[in-house]
Amino acid sequence: MSKFIVIGERIHVISPVIREALDKRDPEPILQRAKDQIAAGATYIDVNIGPAESQGVDIMKWAVTTIQEACDNIPLALDTANKAAIEAGISVYNRSKGKPIVNSADAGDRVEYIDLAAANDAIIIALLSKDGIPSDNDERMEYLQEMLERGMGLGMEPDDMWFDPLFLVIKGMQEKQLEVLEAIKMVTDMGLMTTGGLSNVSNGMPKNIRPIIDAVFIARAIQAGFTSAILNPNDEQMMQTIKCCDIINNEVLYADSFLDL
Amino acid sequence: MSKFIVIGERIHVISPVIREALDKRDPEPILQRAKDQIAAGATYIDVNIGPAESQGVDIMKWAVTTIQEACDNIPLALDTANKAAIEAGISVYNRSKGKPIVNSADAGDRVEYIDLAAANDAIIIALLSKDGIPSDNDERMEYLQEMLERGMGLGMEPDDMWFDPLFLVIKGMQEKQLEVLEAIKMVTDMGLMTTGGLSNVSNGMPKNIRPIIDAVFIARAIQAGFTSAILNPNDEQMMQTIKCCDIINNEVLYADSFLDL
Repeated sequence: MSKFIVIGERIHVISPVIREALDKRDPEPILQRAKDQIAAGATYIDVNIGPAESQGVDIMKWAVTTIQEACDNIPLALDTANKAAIEAGISVYNRSKGKPIVNSADAGDRVEYIDLAAANDAIIIALLSKDGIPSDNDERMEYLQEMLERGMGLGMEPDDMWFDPLFLVIKGMQEKQLEVLEAIKMVTDMGLMTTGGLSNVSNGMPKNIRPIIDAVFIARAIQAGFTSAILNPNDEQMMQTIKCCDIINNEVLYADSFLDL
Repeated sequence: MSKFIVIGERIHVISPVIREALDKRDPEPILQRAKDQIAAGATYIDVNIGPAESQGVDIMKWAVTTIQEACDNIPLALDTANKAAIEAGISVYNRSKGKPIVNSADAGDRVEYIDLAAANDAIIIALLSKDGIPSDNDERMEYLQEMLERGMGLGMEPDDMWFDPLFLVIKGMQEKQLEVLEAIKMVTDMGLMTTGGLSNVSNGMPKNIRPIIDAVFIARAIQAGFTSAILNPNDEQMMQTIKCCDIINNEVLYADSFLDL
């Protein structure tokens, strides 16, 4: 085991501020969010530029260079459906603090993102789904095998493949939650890494409840073996929970000030 | 699985208010704490009268009758080193809402509390220790076998034996925490129930940190299979965590108001 890995999700084109900053190549709003997330404990920063069909190559190159130069070469997750944009981002990426993450492949239409990661010595986030939501963990494990074999066949290290069980919304799929946690356990028992956009579990819940249930869910996921997540590091309850888990896992030495570190 | 069981710990002789109320047979402070805990979600109320060597029999009878009559026969855990006091408490105990819990046996000097529970059709809390802290989970499982065989030999149902892994303080035994969580998993995998005084993990930590780490720890314990705990139900973060776990476990149907229920 090692310290839990936080991939900060706040540089995302779905935010109007970020969309405008990417369009105008305005570094300030993007660097502000990068720095806020790093200060709160993010290990990686996700850079989601959306489908970015026309200017994706330019935008990703600019974003990677801008963030890494200003933030001591913080490692990044490159997040777009535009494969050329990911390759362009990697071409200017500084690896001194860690490999880039390609976000993401699945066992269906996006399976070739594994090839892209393998060709570029990157980490791949591999979603355990093909066409929508997997019906059960047999299906998840079938997709895992397909993707693991593909990656290893292309020379990837298993540790560079981070499997996302596909978190499901509690409102609507309450009866599926233990299955998702069990999937994390199954992947962990194979000695493999896990990740995912965990706060999806609380989608549609009242705003005051979301941080509470997200925090409880991540504690349980970590108990099941969860090794990283794509989340908002500026959610204080979430980060406190992760810090407590690092203490319980004996990965960080306890000090009375550990929540402030 | 079923809803998580909360045993409220706040009627304890270590509190000067409770000590005085027990000595004077003053119902008010005791009923106040009983009602506060029930309102917050306690399933059982623990009644800790201390060693109670001289007046234990009278005190326990009075406490059991007083609390059950005022609180709709709430089930109780009878908690004292005075065996005659436990037997006296059971003699006046109303079982309409559930069996009494005997708190507690261990595999050493207190092993005969199992016999007491068996003879009185009570639930026993069985601590997985003999002389102090068990050195590892092999030792815990050895004690479990000894106590399980003793109880079953006396006709107890395994579901009436709740095993306490012995939670250890993080400050000082940080490297033992995953072992305790693993012990819960091992007991759970045998199909058995677990319990314990979980907030011991945060002993000695600053007051503002304790509720946070206690909440994270119980979420992880529940993920490992933990079925009940002896705790302060008026710790809001703890109870919110337990309610979230009941939702994730699909034991309580989600509603936007679930934290208020």
